[in-house]
This record gives sequence, structure tokens and C-alpha cells, in this order.
Amino acid sequence: MNTHRTILGLRAEVLRFKRSGQSVAFVPTMGNLHSGHYRLVEIARERADRVVASVFVNPTQFAPNEDFERYPRTLEADAEGLARAGCDALFAPDSAEMYASEAGLAVVSVPALSNLLCGAFRPGHFDGVATVVAKLFNIVQPDFAIFGEKDYQQLAVIRAMVRGLSAPVEIVGAATVREPDGLAMSSRNQFLSPEERAVAALIFQTLGAIARRYRDGESVDSLESYGSAQLKQVGFNVDYVAVRDALTLGAVSADQAAVVLIAARIGSTRLIDSLKIELNA
Amino acid sequence: MNTHRTILGLRAEVLRFKRSGQSVAFVPTMGNLHSGHYRLVEIARERADRVVASVFVNPTQFAPNEDFERYPRTLEADAEGLARAGCDALFAPDSAEMYASEAGLAVVSVPALSNLLCGAFRPGHFDGVATVVAKLFNIVQPDFAIFGEKDYQQLAVIRAMVRGLSAPVEIVGAATVREPDGLAMSSRNQFLSPEERAVAALIFQTLGAIARRYRDGESVDSLESYGSAQLKQVGFNVDYVAVRDALTLGAVSADQAAVVLIAARIGSTRLIDSLKIELNA
Repeated sequence: MNTHRTILGLRAEVLRFKRSGQSVAFVPTMGNLHSGHYRLVEIARERADRVVASVFVNPTQFAPNEDFERYPRTLEADAEGLARAGCDALFAPDSAEMYASEAGLAVVSVPALSNLLCGAFRPGHFDGVATVVAKLFNIVQPDFAIFGEKDYQQLAVIRAMVRGLSAPVEIVGAATVREPDGLAMSSRNQFLSPEERAVAALIFQTLGAIARRYRDGESVDSLESYGSAQLKQVGFNVDYVAVRDALTLGAVSADQAAVVLIAARIGSTRLIDSLKIELNA
Repeated sequence: MNTHRTILGLRAEVLRFKRSGQSVAFVPTMGNLHSGHYRLVEIARERADRVVASVFVNPTQFAPNEDFERYPRTLEADAEGLARAGCDALFAPDSAEMYASEAGLAVVSVPALSNLLCGAFRPGHFDGVATVVAKLFNIVQPDFAIFGEKDYQQLAVIRAMVRGLSAPVEIVGAATVREPDGLAMSSRNQFLSPEERAVAALIFQTLGAIARRYRDGESVDSLESYGSAQLKQVGFNVDYVAVRDALTLGAVSADQAAVVLIAARIGSTRLIDSLKIELNA
């Protein structure tokens, strides 16, 4: 597996893949890889002849008060893990390479999905995500791109960006990989103290309880209050507990699948998770 | 020359070009083609093996009060002219094909360049332009794209969009094609009454006079006032006469090339034009 620091180097390798008629699946990450990411690589290998991953902690999707500085950087271990997982090329640019002239020169946004839920708590976050993903797609030019469903709103934003801009890439969503107690795998889990880690699984339990009670006919308002109360009881600061339409992320509609989404902070760590409620499940 | 109404159809033809190792140059237009457009096709043929043009009057770059409805549609003549000019494929989608789900689902913007000059008079215009061009690039996936320098700010916005998003396309600017009296060719010229047409060439004369006087050392403020006065005298409503830095479109700097830009309305028609002032020219 070659690691490329430059856009030119990565493009030259992808061009070699394409010239020999091979399809390319892409796994964009912010590094500090865990089993959830390696599952994305596995899915990528099932889809395409070649797998390209990227590791880039994108500054433009962090607000000034957020954890950009402390976000874990573990490139050496990530590269080893990706090579073992069967990744063919790694793109690991620095910020100067990605935003050569200036960050924010061109901005991609998905207005209808970017200001609700996490967007309301992280202004500019989804513009940063949509922009860097659009740019990475232009650099890698993959046939497929694989994203985890854990970041449910992010996946919705990216799908809308691709549809809206006719980006020539097929987006593949991958089921969330969880710890044995149900906590969604996340690079931010390592910030949790033992006490925080012990209660963190309550997020997934709450998602499950809400899904069951929703199918039993309980109202959205009642479920959102219930979920918040559950989490606050053990010390979470709740950004939101929301039952939404699984496609639009707007108010849930009777004939569409729903999704439960939670964002909550414990100590200085913000965790998010989600669970789709299948119709007639 | 095949005319394609659908993204799928156009992509299939471009794929055939690329599979046989041919490069592609792209000429995006809003139709109602004139010699200026055909010059773009000529430049495209010099650059690449195959030429793809598009004709699409993009609704998202017109404000509600603007001339979207009366913008001339002459697809049949355009297709004939393009075929004669040596164009290999024409993409002529309708709005439903381009904005299948919804217009404005994803928006591309270039904040630093979009709100000044024409952007101040046409809110949202350059977001519409950057978005539709990014989308057309994703659909056509050309190696080169050719744009006229007449729409100077548009060209600057597109260059910034491409750089900011690392779009894999090389932008080629083409010198403005003019009528014998200097009026820049434009689809909007046909809206001019004989009387309006008679004075319209004053725009180009004013650009030239400003360029000469700038090189002679006259101040930007004085030149902008002079230009406005000239145009108002014959009945123009002047949106702006501006001498700017040719690269950033910001305040002109001594060591950079400058550009003079004019936007002015006569009757119900808005005309724009520009002239670069070469250093030491």
C-alpha cells in the first residue's frame, strides 16, 4: 500500500488503477481507525477491485471551540491497519495540501439538512463535511464511497450533495459497528473516563427502547422526553433526542421509515448515535 | 453530433470517447449561440479530441425579477450551429432532468468573489453559476472547459470553484468576441432597440479610455467617476464601473494586472463587459 501526501501522487496511482480497467472504492476517514473503519474497508473490497482510503482531520468541519486540536492523530498505526485490511492506497494530505490557496475558497452546502439536529449545535460543521467530501471525490474520483451509518445526518448530507451535484460516485452506507455493550465505535470513545464509559452504553439502550415504544404507538414528543430524561439521569448533557423521518430528517411521517437520533455530552466528550426504525419490523 | 436530453445518455457517450483514449473539452452555454460561442467551440477543438457542448438556461442563476422567462431559447438553430462548428455531442437537459429532486438541494458558493460587483446586484447569481457548473462538470467529466472572458467575474468564480474543490478539469479563458463597433457579443444584445444598440458600443469605448488613462496614472476613483458619467450621459443606468485587481477582483494593487469592469442597463437590458489592463502594455 502506497501512502500519498499529495493530490498529484494519489491521482497518478488512481489513474493506473483505472487505466487497467479496475474499479475503485473509497473510504474517507479522519484517522484513529477502529473496527468500524476496517469494516468500511471490508465493504469497499466487496464492491470494487481497488480500495483507496484517506486520513485527513479536516479543520473546516470543527468550530473554533471544538476538539480539532485534541482529535487523535495516529497515522502510523492507521497506515499499518489499512494495509493489513487490504487497502491499496492511502491519501494522507496535510492542510496546506488540501487548502493550498485558502480554506473556504469554495463551499458546498446542503441547506435543507445542515442546520437541524447536529447542525444546530455545530454551526458550519456540515458545510465543512460536504465541502471536504466533494473535494475528496474530485481528487480520488472513486466509483463507490463507503460511509458509516453511525454519523446518520452526515450520510444524509453526503447523499444529498451527491444527488444535487450529480457527483459520479455511488454512496454505500455501512451498519454501525458496536462494542459488546452496544456503544457505537468512535474515535472519541477513548476520551471517556472509566465512569463515563460505564454509562455510555445507555445511549444505545435508549435508542432501542425508543424504537420499541415507537412501534407500540407512543408519541414522538413523549419518546423524546423519555429519552432525554433517561440520559440526564446518569449525567449526560443532552443536545437532542429526536425521532425523525429517516429520509428527510424532518418531522416523522406515518408512511416512511423513522430514525431515532441522539447527541449527548458526558464530561467534555460529545457522543452521537442513531437507530433506524424499520416499518413493520 | 448526438443531442442528449438525459444525464445517462450524455455520460454513455462521453464514456465511449474516454474508453477510446480521447480527451474531452466542454463548452457550457445557455444557448442562443453567436460567434462568441462558436469561437469557444473552436478553442475546444484545438485543446481536445472531442468537444461536448451544453445548452441549459439555468433557472437558479436568475433572480425572480430577472429575465429568465424572456431569455431566448433557440435550441434547433443552436444544435445546427454546433454540429457545423465541429461539436461532437450536445447536452440539452430540461430543468426536471437537471434538478430532479429539487433545485437548491446542494449549493456551491465562492464567498470571497460572489457578493461584489455583479453579485451585489444579482443576489444568489454566482451561487447558481458555481453550482450548475460544478454539476455539469460532474456530468460531463471533461478534461478542459472553455469560458468567455466577457463574463469576467463568472470566470473568476469558476476558476476559484475548481481550485477550491480540486475539480479535475482545466479551465481555459477565451478572449471576448466583439461586433465591428466593439460591442461584446451577447445573447442579450438582441433585446436592444436600434437607438439603444447605437449607443451600446460606448461601453467598450469607455473601457478602452479608462485603460489608457489608468496607464497614464489617473486614480481609480477618478476613472470610475469618469466612466459612470460617460455612460449616464447617453441614457445608461450604471450598476458599476470598477477598476479592480485582475486576480482577486479586490482593490487594485500596484504590482498586479488590473481589469476594468462595467455593468450598465439601457432600457430593460443589462449589459456587462470588461477589459484587462496589461502591466507595461
